[in-house]
Amino acid sequence: MTSPNGSTTNLSADPAAIRRSFDHTWATLSPIGRDRVSGGYNRFPFTAVDLSLREWFTAEATKRGLDVEVDRNGNQWAWWGTPTSGAVATGSHLDSVPGGGAFDGPLGVVSSFLALDALRAAGVTPVRPLVIINFFEEEGSRFGLACLGSRLMTGQTNPDTARALTDNDGISLADAADAAGIRAQDMGHDADALAKIGVFVELHVEQGKNLVDQNASVGVASAIWPHGRWRFTFTGEGNHAGTTALVDRRDPMLPFATTILAARSIAETHDAVSTFGRVRVDPNGTNAIPARVDAWLDTRAADEASVSGVVRDLSAEASAAGTAHGVEVEVSQESWTPVIDFHRPLRDRLVATLDTAGISAPVLPTGAGHDAGILSNAVPTAMLFVRNPTGVSHSPREYAEEVDCVDGVIALAAVLTDLLTSPAETVTAGQ
Amino acid sequence: MTSPNGSTTNLSADPAAIRRSFDHTWATLSPIGRDRVSGGYNRFPFTAVDLSLREWFTAEATKRGLDVEVDRNGNQWAWWGTPTSGAVATGSHLDSVPGGGAFDGPLGVVSSFLALDALRAAGVTPVRPLVIINFFEEEGSRFGLACLGSRLMTGQTNPDTARALTDNDGISLADAADAAGIRAQDMGHDADALAKIGVFVELHVEQGKNLVDQNASVGVASAIWPHGRWRFTFTGEGNHAGTTALVDRRDPMLPFATTILAARSIAETHDAVSTFGRVRVDPNGTNAIPARVDAWLDTRAADEASVSGVVRDLSAEASAAGTAHGVEVEVSQESWTPVIDFHRPLRDRLVATLDTAGISAPVLPTGAGHDAGILSNAVPTAMLFVRNPTGVSHSPREYAEEVDCVDGVIALAAVLTDLLTSPAETVTAGQ
Repeated sequence: MTSPNGSTTNLSADPAAIRRSFDHTWATLSPIGRDRVSGGYNRFPFTAVDLSLREWFTAEATKRGLDVEVDRNGNQWAWWGTPTSGAVATGSHLDSVPGGGAFDGPLGVVSSFLALDALRAAGVTPVRPLVIINFFEEEGSRFGLACLGSRLMTGQTNPDTARALTDNDGISLADAADAAGIRAQDMGHDADALAKIGVFVELHVEQGKNLVDQNASVGVASAIWPHGRWRFTFTGEGNHAGTTALVDRRDPMLPFATTILAARSIAETHDAVSTFGRVRVDPNGTNAIPARVDAWLDTRAADEASVSGVVRDLSAEASAAGTAHGVEVEVSQESWTPVIDFHRPLRDRLVATLDTAGISAPVLPTGAGHDAGILSNAVPTAMLFVRNPTGVSHSPREYAEEVDCVDGVIALAAVLTDLLTSPAETVTAGQ
Repeated sequence: MTSPNGSTTNLSADPAAIRRSFDHTWATLSPIGRDRVSGGYNRFPFTAVDLSLREWFTAEATKRGLDVEVDRNGNQWAWWGTPTSGAVATGSHLDSVPGGGAFDGPLGVVSSFLALDALRAAGVTPVRPLVIINFFEEEGSRFGLACLGSRLMTGQTNPDTARALTDNDGISLADAADAAGIRAQDMGHDADALAKIGVFVELHVEQGKNLVDQNASVGVASAIWPHGRWRFTFTGEGNHAGTTALVDRRDPMLPFATTILAARSIAETHDAVSTFGRVRVDPNGTNAIPARVDAWLDTRAADEASVSGVVRDLSAEASAAGTAHGVEVEVSQESWTPVIDFHRPLRDRLVATLDTAGISAPVLPTGAGHDAGILSNAVPTAMLFVRNPTGVSHSPREYAEEVDCVDGVIALAAVLTDLLTSPAETVTAGQ
């Protein structure tokens, strides 16, 4: 294989060997946090399942002779070579949405370890260290704010705000972290850790069917749509479902229903996607008119003006519906990620490297957020996508063909080989 | 006081004494299962809170020298006199809806103990025993089926069905009962227990403002509206909220929203009340289109045809909305209580007794279900209501003025005195 800067490596990717290693590694990870009935995963931070995932990561690193560090924000770092600034970083996350799939996150971590194996098998001699990172709380499933590990590290989230976040049982992130042996008081902007990353490449299963349409097993990310989360709180009056006349009710479920339907039609108007996927009803009793409904809106579009337009119009609709039912409506932003255009020279370099390796990788945007998106504000960052035959994600039905996963490992190994062996000044210089 | 059959008792109700005793007794019960933040109660069967409530009941009975039995279905019975058939029974329940009020259930139990105290203070000599019953799982908050203790005892619920009911954590009623020391295998129709009840009178806080409108502290029930619970299951396809195009979605939240709004308009059409108070979203993640939404409909009206009409029309609307979104909709009945017309001679007897005691008690229907409604299919049954100044129930804001609670105790004592001292043939014979 010839890298774009002209040096030649002897990376002879052996698909059969990678496949065997993939099978074995995947099998050790698969049972952790899996619901036996639904087949979905519940991998939430600071739980027993999370501890098992961290132990799995440490074990995979240790058996490869890598040193593992945990940074101030709970992210795990496995080092090939002496930790120093300007390393080539890869990895992803091991947590899941509630009832999530097996691939979203773990595929990137597993592929990183297997790509390292391929590099070693090929005798690649890096001129800078490689580090594989397991990012903490990427999905935001427990504490509501996605990409928390990368947001804290890069200073994009105030640590006081993060520590005060609570889960559905009212447990604060600070208490959960301390109970899991990660000092919550140490969390926050970690310039030392960040300086160690010279360039970051995250491999991820595609969450959509772009690669199916383009008949490609691997793609390169161009951009992440701007996206955010807003909490809609409808406060009415709890009362008896059997004895309260309709005209006497202040039932928050009704304006919530109007808001769900409006979210769909307003998203269509703005060429956006909008979802109410999470709802909390208080007290949630069959024979009780709710006192309050909390619902979380996820909205994304190709440009920021469209997202803002959806939230503006929907807030107005929700407020009007609330007024009609004597229900108070509050809308608060819980997270916001501006549009991410990935580092153009690095992206072009990945496409060229893959092309040289015989892999034709289309360039495509995504509506999904990633730690790579957060890091891209601080360091040159790129993403590789692996084909998803159904496009389904955040579901037990999420899937990737093993042959495509192997292609992903080969692609990542090619990219890492290039980045680890090229002169520093060329790595992100757009060659 | 003169009872309707002409005998004279020396019941000299002392409001000040009852009030002091009410204060004291209420204070011992109030802290159990109370949420310190909301002030609402979470008193669910077979929990540590439930065990505390049972211990409280036993302690109140024991300090009055009453023997306590637990029947095969988990109901507690406190006996004044030797247990035998044909007793005068009173009482209510101690469990609550999620975030419920302090009065719904407990007021009837506390008033029963205080009425007994008043009877003893007055030197009433009963010709039959009195029994105070704490019914199990009246609200159906944990296992979904209301009035479970009385339904099982009277054979109105199949015990196999009951044992297989599960709570939100998937724990079966059978397992929860066994863990709490109540043998689930013994549950079911209990003719021996039922035969012990000659007549049943339940006192309850009103759940509505009828007594406010009629300027009365105490009322007598005429009927309970027919009512039922139906589970609406919307099954779509879980997927990523950011990467799934609107046209590719099968989002169950949308037909659910249409169904919420239709429930209100259809209830108006049928002169009924309909409520979606309980919702379960799977997986309930902000960035995941739900795979499934379960929602429970509570519907009631003055006549059964109206209730059936609501469910028929709403099922059709839900199904059509489901089809429009590629979502499967299933509707299943979880409980059904036909209209209850309380025993007319007994009801008239209560009104006459109260009138003689100087209490003008209006007769009124209610939309709320009660164990008294279940028992009325098996034995002569009546209810007393105590004024609720706001009408609010199933909410931390549920309330009754203490002066009205004292009136309730006096009314119950008058009724019990009459029933305990009259010849057997006259008790429910319409005299």
